[in-house]
Amino acid sequence: MARLRDMGRATAVVSVADVSSWDREADVVVVGFGSAGACTAIEAREAGAEVIVLERASGGGGTSANSTGELYLGGGTPVQKDCGFEDDAEEMYKYLMAASGPNPDEAKIRLCVDSNVEHFHWLVDHGVRFKHSYYGDGSYIPTDDCLAWSGSELNRRFAAIAKPAPRGHTAQREGIEAGSELMRSLCEATERSGAEILTDCRVETLVQDRDRRVLGVVARIDGEDRRIRARGGVVLCAGGFINNDEMVAHHAPWLRRCKMRLAVDGDDGRGIRMGLGAGGEAIRMDTACIVLPFTVPKKHIQGLMVNLKGQRFINEDAYQTEVGAAALRAQDGQVLLVVDDEIYERPFPPVEFAGVGDTIEELERELEMPEGALQHTVAYYNEHAARGEDPIHGKTAEFLKPLTKPPFAALDYRVEHSLWGAFTMGGLHTSVDGEVLTADGDAIPGLYAAGRTTSGLAAQGYSSGLSLTDCTFFGRRAGRAAAGQAAR
Amino acid sequence: MARLRDMGRATAVVSVADVSSWDREADVVVVGFGSAGACTAIEAREAGAEVIVLERASGGGGTSANSTGELYLGGGTPVQKDCGFEDDAEEMYKYLMAASGPNPDEAKIRLCVDSNVEHFHWLVDHGVRFKHSYYGDGSYIPTDDCLAWSGSELNRRFAAIAKPAPRGHTAQREGIEAGSELMRSLCEATERSGAEILTDCRVETLVQDRDRRVLGVVARIDGEDRRIRARGGVVLCAGGFINNDEMVAHHAPWLRRCKMRLAVDGDDGRGIRMGLGAGGEAIRMDTACIVLPFTVPKKHIQGLMVNLKGQRFINEDAYQTEVGAAALRAQDGQVLLVVDDEIYERPFPPVEFAGVGDTIEELERELEMPEGALQHTVAYYNEHAARGEDPIHGKTAEFLKPLTKPPFAALDYRVEHSLWGAFTMGGLHTSVDGEVLTADGDAIPGLYAAGRTTSGLAAQGYSSGLSLTDCTFFGRRAGRAAAGQAAR
Repeated sequence: MARLRDMGRATAVVSVADVSSWDREADVVVVGFGSAGACTAIEAREAGAEVIVLERASGGGGTSANSTGELYLGGGTPVQKDCGFEDDAEEMYKYLMAASGPNPDEAKIRLCVDSNVEHFHWLVDHGVRFKHSYYGDGSYIPTDDCLAWSGSELNRRFAAIAKPAPRGHTAQREGIEAGSELMRSLCEATERSGAEILTDCRVETLVQDRDRRVLGVVARIDGEDRRIRARGGVVLCAGGFINNDEMVAHHAPWLRRCKMRLAVDGDDGRGIRMGLGAGGEAIRMDTACIVLPFTVPKKHIQGLMVNLKGQRFINEDAYQTEVGAAALRAQDGQVLLVVDDEIYERPFPPVEFAGVGDTIEELERELEMPEGALQHTVAYYNEHAARGEDPIHGKTAEFLKPLTKPPFAALDYRVEHSLWGAFTMGGLHTSVDGEVLTADGDAIPGLYAAGRTTSGLAAQGYSSGLSLTDCTFFGRRAGRAAAGQAAR
Repeated sequence: MARLRDMGRATAVVSVADVSSWDREADVVVVGFGSAGACTAIEAREAGAEVIVLERASGGGGTSANSTGELYLGGGTPVQKDCGFEDDAEEMYKYLMAASGPNPDEAKIRLCVDSNVEHFHWLVDHGVRFKHSYYGDGSYIPTDDCLAWSGSELNRRFAAIAKPAPRGHTAQREGIEAGSELMRSLCEATERSGAEILTDCRVETLVQDRDRRVLGVVARIDGEDRRIRARGGVVLCAGGFINNDEMVAHHAPWLRRCKMRLAVDGDDGRGIRMGLGAGGEAIRMDTACIVLPFTVPKKHIQGLMVNLKGQRFINEDAYQTEVGAAALRAQDGQVLLVVDDEIYERPFPPVEFAGVGDTIEELERELEMPEGALQHTVAYYNEHAARGEDPIHGKTAEFLKPLTKPPFAALDYRVEHSLWGAFTMGGLHTSVDGEVLTADGDAIPGLYAAGRTTSGLAAQGYSSGLSLTDCTFFGRRAGRAAAGQAAR
């Protein structure tokens, strides 16, 4: 338990009876200054609240600033329209409901989808720039373009349910780190809003009364514990828990095997722990965004993702997070991508060869797979791919090409040998207004949360950009709700 | 949220400042009278504590009384010895560590394994009878015999790690419901111990002081709320949450598809919710025991478990809970068992035919599988099975037999069409002494838990009998620990 204890006892809420006086006061106290915290603060200010933002790092941005800066937005945004794509809220709703696993949060999806165009304009009005241009695929956009396919919309399975549209909207910036640009805009907007921002200030725990109402926080400022009262509410926007080994071990131990934690240091579950300490419930704690980055170049989707027995287990055109989740859980992260000379290009990020052969038989032998297994997988696939079919896994015709041009190779995408990325998607259970709920479904008065401190839009499935949309959209709602409490 | 609210606000802990007087008092208050509650009460009494057991049903037993009455015990019990099986704690430890997924609770496994023989004697001393006889396989024993293989010990994968031994110990009773006999013994022992037992008495919530110490409970007795003080501690032994739809939806939604909930009504997560309300953390909430009951007759393990595309995905000799978990999560519960006329016998529980054919090709067509897929699966399997090999999935030689005798059939084990069983394995995070821990790893003073209200011995894997061993062994420890607090 050493590691956790070093992280401080976030759950040890302080009784208001032990607080003799408050050092500071505001209507809304926002814990964390990533995208969720920024949007919370801005909305709360615009609703007339006095706002203090407390950030433990030395500046704003959080994990959002390290991200690709892509938001999942649709329903007919100006960018979609200018790029010639039709979309409507209903189709987006159907896609998200289908792509979010067995228990999607319908209320959040409904509300978010119906407000997507408004939310796009709100972001623009607050300084976020989107070029009205179409890039193509994926969430790693090397140019300053905007619109991209960032989920499984075009897959047979989903295209049959909802009319596809590209919905990844990346903030305008040359290079794959547009998150810094997104957060530059949102941090500036927060400053302009008049919210007070305190950095290098770690919130230790919450202050509660005996009716469970949250009245404020205890924060470490300049080496001293300060009590800061929140008249309307405290909003926890403190990120996820991928950097808390103990929490990951308890809730999603397989994530420990992903090399790249898509996170900043602060993603140690502190916000979630504070919420638990106050009596909240954390849900879907096993869920995560797991990125198996094998789709650059896109031609590699024409390859075959197989386990170490030479068996396919998924349609390779499923979005890379869907492939990642299936590969990590059901295949123990032990997967290879089989390509031929026609489709092979140097992949990004780089990956090693697990084996090469002039024939599939030779490749199979080099990989020490069961005799005949990979040969059959490839032969069966090739036979049907030539007819534009993939009867077992249903890959879309566009990506079906028999693998026939030697030499053949298997790229080593085993989780320990390549650059899988992960961040957690589980967190506090919240209402659509960001109220933190108990396991009985009751709101804890005065306590709100948004972003990766909560379980948000994406229940079990993940399309790129959903997390930033969740953070910004439901951050706004939490800010408004907390401000409303102060005004009462 | 209606359903949850009807279940009462377990999380709404009462402040001791609002308790003007106590209606009753004891050293240890045990919430729930299943196997965990009974063993808690007995040990606490034997440690000299005054004990009250509160049970919401009209009598003791809980889910344990509806179970098969099988405990997972090893390390050289008298039954194992008399039946001619060698076992030692180290081998049992190695098996459990390997079979419990990526993050086993090593401390609990270590302690339990080292005390297993002592625990066996304790159970016998408290009236539980075990016939010193060997039955064979499984957890549904129709005779009054005792010892059985109840996990994956003999699988190639585990046999390479730990010397196999049968460890399922079923209490002596004719028929598959030996749980009632186990609980008759333990309930009688509890009565003999002098613990006071109150039935038809639902605990509503906990009473806490502002330092988070749990001082007692509020219980509904004869239509009135009664405050019962616990000088040493409250021990939550109130079962799992499979009968709480909302909690299942939030933590393990796929379980809703299993028809048979291995539970009593009380398994509505109330104990877990009380612990959360007091600031505890629930962990591994996605884990469960998922039973896909396809192994009676045992010859059916020689069949091929396939998905609807005719693909195998596991060695069929994996324990039925391991097959169940893999089939439900990664195959969406859509699986069939292919058999030939030589191995087919009427299965128990009964199951429908999904298809029959004189050839595999005909069967494949009838099942509307992709052309050639099942044919290849069977041909490849047969070719290797004839040589005693299963290169892809590694089924043990004993169960390898080419499927060649027509007619062939597919038994319909799709989750919606057959009798899958499930109960939850996630719950409150506890120390080896049953202390309920916060998300920071600190014990909540005065609060303990055991059994399915906690996340116990089996982290991600499940061998039959582990839950009753967990309930009884760690119930005892929690009872002792709480009694010790009263004595201080």
